[in-house]
Order: sequence, then structure tokens, then C-alpha cells
Amino acid sequence: MENQFESKTDVNDLGEFGLIDHLTKNFPINHPSTKKGIGDDAAVIDYGDLATVVSTDMLVEGIHFDMMYTPLMHLGYKAVVVNLSDIYAMNATPKQITVSIAISNRFSVEAMDELYKGIHKACAFYNVDLVGGDMTSSPKGLIISVTAIGAAHPDKIVYRNTAKLGDLLCVTGDLGAAYLGLQILEREKQIYLSNPGIQPELDGQTYLVGRQLKPEARRDAIQMFEQNKLIPTSMIDISDGLASEIFHLCKQSNLGAFVEESGVPIHPDAELKALDFKMDPITCALSGGEDYELLFTINPDDIEKVKYLPDIYIMGEMVKKEDGIKLHTKGGNLHAITAQGWKHF
Amino acid sequence: MENQFESKTDVNDLGEFGLIDHLTKNFPINHPSTKKGIGDDAAVIDYGDLATVVSTDMLVEGIHFDMMYTPLMHLGYKAVVVNLSDIYAMNATPKQITVSIAISNRFSVEAMDELYKGIHKACAFYNVDLVGGDMTSSPKGLIISVTAIGAAHPDKIVYRNTAKLGDLLCVTGDLGAAYLGLQILEREKQIYLSNPGIQPELDGQTYLVGRQLKPEARRDAIQMFEQNKLIPTSMIDISDGLASEIFHLCKQSNLGAFVEESGVPIHPDAELKALDFKMDPITCALSGGEDYELLFTINPDDIEKVKYLPDIYIMGEMVKKEDGIKLHTKGGNLHAITAQGWKHF
Repeated sequence: MENQFESKTDVNDLGEFGLIDHLTKNFPINHPSTKKGIGDDAAVIDYGDLATVVSTDMLVEGIHFDMMYTPLMHLGYKAVVVNLSDIYAMNATPKQITVSIAISNRFSVEAMDELYKGIHKACAFYNVDLVGGDMTSSPKGLIISVTAIGAAHPDKIVYRNTAKLGDLLCVTGDLGAAYLGLQILEREKQIYLSNPGIQPELDGQTYLVGRQLKPEARRDAIQMFEQNKLIPTSMIDISDGLASEIFHLCKQSNLGAFVEESGVPIHPDAELKALDFKMDPITCALSGGEDYELLFTINPDDIEKVKYLPDIYIMGEMVKKEDGIKLHTKGGNLHAITAQGWKHF
Repeated sequence: MENQFESKTDVNDLGEFGLIDHLTKNFPINHPSTKKGIGDDAAVIDYGDLATVVSTDMLVEGIHFDMMYTPLMHLGYKAVVVNLSDIYAMNATPKQITVSIAISNRFSVEAMDELYKGIHKACAFYNVDLVGGDMTSSPKGLIISVTAIGAAHPDKIVYRNTAKLGDLLCVTGDLGAAYLGLQILEREKQIYLSNPGIQPELDGQTYLVGRQLKPEARRDAIQMFEQNKLIPTSMIDISDGLASEIFHLCKQSNLGAFVEESGVPIHPDAELKALDFKMDPITCALSGGEDYELLFTINPDDIEKVKYLPDIYIMGEMVKKEDGIKLHTKGGNLHAITAQGWKHF
């Protein structure tokens, strides 16, 4: 829990335009589709025969992140990744982002540098151009709003409302780990607050904490689909937890779903840590959120295309709406999965 | 100064998705280019042979607006308009917006309804589709982040860095009124705070207060350009004040500018109110901001195309960089115009 505000240059020393120039000068423009990036009233993007895909997300200090255990570089990285994840969930490729930031006067230029280092890393790794944004002050805390813009051939875009009866329900990666990483960080924060002399115990928790602080978007899955000529019948990214996302797919496709508990991928570290916290691992997977994995359905005829793909799991199938959304537990019971609506006001 | 929080339905009664559905259900999709709007991971936009233009802005309570005198409907309208203004400033036509909102728990569903009524009015008036966004909570205050997406023929897009030596410097509308409107509202707020029994005196101030609370973007100017086959050589919208915007055009085009004070349009109400506040009207025009007029340059050969257009004023010309940015006052003096950098941290 290092002090991210140690070396201080007042942002007013640079002013708005100076700060934007300073923070964005090392962001290259890599895409021919980016006709104009930062520095005009608007960015200009030209996709010719491709469709444009746009997604936006806002991260608020005290709601989505806690500065006590979130390094600013990780935060910048994550703010980009959660938006790219939405673009991949359309089976599209992100090409540009805009980043708007509101900061209170407790943030220094050095703090903003750290944040933009993370944004830069994400842009470089996922090959997206930073093309615009806004920079303003806030009376309290840090707010980051990112809009991602992607491109796709119109006939390859995958929506949420196009799953068909009998389609197989699949998921990438593993679930629940980001939520458990958050629980670890929250626990260490409480210990630190009650006794600042105690150092945080994060040894051996790298995987779970990493899933919370530095998630990745599943570009690799989209690339595997392309290589294997697979177009999912529907897709959504898992930001609010598996249950909520299954609920969205079902509602929008006017179907139900049958999910095998044994088919829901959970990392061994997550299994162990859930038990340590006296939680049910499957509950963490269903309701945890922030995994940024892809939930998708495929036509059963395409099963050979995914069966041997790494890190993709078939966990159920789409059924009639009247049959509801059900989890078949390892113990042989059938439970209704309820949409864990988000309520964080 | 009515209470915008009187009738209260807790936003938690609806939840995130319920609230989004509730707020956005009456927003139509009007553009064939909008292939998919709200309700998936991302919106899908298809421009065929047009270029995509993207702009984003963030408005923060306590920085950009004061809830004491800003009706939420006006705020929603303005949040959209300031972004559309950026798209028009590219000589492009806005087609879609995304709106992300963070709200503290003091905002009710009814308050959000008011905000979205304003967003709806702006979408209807400017013919843009609401295609996505994010809805989250904030520990304090209201934050609105809007991204506007427009389209233009690539050869008609107008940038900031393409003004040429000898080009005429023009502006739409009038300047300084929005700033004076803000001064009136701030004065009435102070009077109200020191004596809540006194009713605000806004009679006869409609024009100035209206310019602050409900600005419009200059779609009409862009349409006039099109009808008159005029393509400005450079353009920018006036959000931070004339001085700052002239500075941007000059810096990016590597030129200086010569501005006639008598050519800077100021509304009679603004003249009078400036004197009332013991301010120099030209200072209000140069440094006030939030006018959302268009500042642009034209080739002198095009002078016949703008000379008789309503609400467009020629106020100077582009000169060599070495000659600086100068104001020729009514008194015959020559003053350097300095970029009023924004500093509101």
C-alpha cells in the first residue's frame, strides 16, 4: 500500500491543455482507420466497408475502485480493458478509445502519469489508438469514463438476442476469481486500517488479486473463433457475474438455460479461497462479477470447433423460456438461477 | 429555485437495468446507420462510405453546473448539446450519442426522469439516436459523460490545423452572453443563500440566462455552409472563450491572427449586463466561454458566400505566426490576446 501521491507537481502548473499534451504525447496512432486523433473537436475514424462498434463505461472512485489498494497504473489498464471486453463480446476488434477523466486536487501530475502509463500499456497490448477525451476537475475523487470503438464485418457481429433453442452455452477462462481477489484486498485493508504496522499478506494470492486488479479482455478467444471459422450464435462479456449475464442472454433471446454446476470453470485458487472465506465457490462464480470472460452460445453442429480449444468450456444449453434458468448442482439438485441485479447506490 | 428532489422513488427500486430501461424506452432509433442501439455490449454503427467522427465531454456537479440553479432537464439538454457542438465544429453531422451517468443516492427516479427528458429533447431536436451508456452510483454528486458520434464525407471534414495565411476569421452568433448569464445566476444564488425569503430577479435576463442554461449547437451554420457550397479552411467550437479558441486555431495552423474588436459580435443585453457588473464587454467575449458558437476561417475568395449569411461575422484575418495574436481595439490600440488557459482545479 504505497503512497501514490508522494512526488507532487500540481496539475495547475500544466493547465488542462498542457496536462492533456503531457499525458498523451507518447500514444501512437497505429490504425489506418484513425484519420484524426487527439487535438481537434472530435476524432475522425473511417471504416470503409466495416461496421463501427461503440461501447462506454464509467469507473468511479469509492464505487468501482478503492485507491487504498488500487495502483493507478493498474486502474488505467483496467479502465481500458473493461471497455475492450465489451467490443470483443460483439465479436468485433477494438481500434480506438477515448478517455475522459475528472480528478480532485489531491491528484498530482505524477499520479496522472501513473494512470496514463496503465492506459498506454493497455493501448499497446490490445493495439488500440487513444483518439480523444476530456480532462476536468472533480470536487471529490477520481472518475474515469472510457468509450471504445471497434470494427467488424457486419455479418460477423454477434448480439445477445440471437441464441437459439438447443444451442450450447459456453464460457471462456474461469469465474469467481476477481471477486475473491477483491475480498482479499478488502480484508487486508481492514487489517491495515486497524493496525497500520501490519504489512499486507498477499503472498500466494497472486492469481486472485491479479484477476481483480489487472483483468484481461478475451481477444484470444475472438481470434480463435476467427481461426476456426466459428461465429457464436450469441455472446456477452461477464462483468456482473455469470448469473446476471445468463439472465441477459435468456431474456433477450426469449429462452431459458440449463447449466451444469460441474461445467462452470473455477480456478483451484478460487475454490480454496472461497472455502477459506466460508463461501460456496459456485456462488462466487455466479454472482461475483468482474471476470471479463466471454459467455456465448454455439450451434450444436459447431461443437467440434470448440471441443479442443484451450480455455473454453461447455457448461449447458439453451432451453425453452418456460423451463426457466436452472443450475443442476453436483449434488443432483435443480436450482433456479436468479438475476443478481446490481444495487450499489 | 424549485426543489428537484420533491417526488422521490428510490433508484434502487428499479435497479441498474430497470432504471436504464425506464429512462431510455422512449428514445427512438431514427438513423439507418444505427444497426444496434442500447441493449448489447456495444452499439453498432455503419457508415458505408462516410467517415465516423467521435467526440466526448464530461460534466461534473460543482464544477460545470450548480444544482441550485440548473434545472435537471436543462442540464440533460446541455450535456448533449456541448458534444454535438464538437461534431458540428468538424463540419460533420452527429448521428448517435452514448450517455454515462454517475449519481449519488440523493437523486430519485423522478430526478433522473427530468434529466433524461432534457436528453430526449436534445436527441429529438438535433435528430441523434441514443445508442448506449453506463449508469452507476457516485459517492457525491452527479457526473455526466457524453460521447457523440457523427458522420461526414471525408473531403468535407474541417480540422483546426488547416487555416492558411490571409484567411478571414469568422464567427457565428454572439459571444460573452453565456458567461454573463452565469454571473447573474451566481449573484442570485448568493442573495438567496443570505436571505432565502428573497425571490430571484431574473426578469428581463431571459436571453443571458438562457444562453447559460440552454445553449444550442450551430447545426444551422453547418447547413448554411452546405447550401452555399462553402467549406471553411479551419473550424473550432467556442467552449472556453474566443481567446482560447483563436489561440488553438493559430497554434495548430502555425499562424497568428489579427482581430478587430468592432468585428466581435456581442449581444446588446450582454453589453448592458457587462457594464452593470463593471466588466468590459470584450473581455467577457474573449474569456467567458460556453457560447458554443463556431469560430472558423475561410479563403478570402469565398467572402461572397458568407457576406450575406445571417448571424455570421467576419472579425479578422490570419497573419504570420511572428505577428502574434492581436486585438485591434475600438480605441485604436493593439493588444496581444493571451490564451486564457483553463485552471479550475
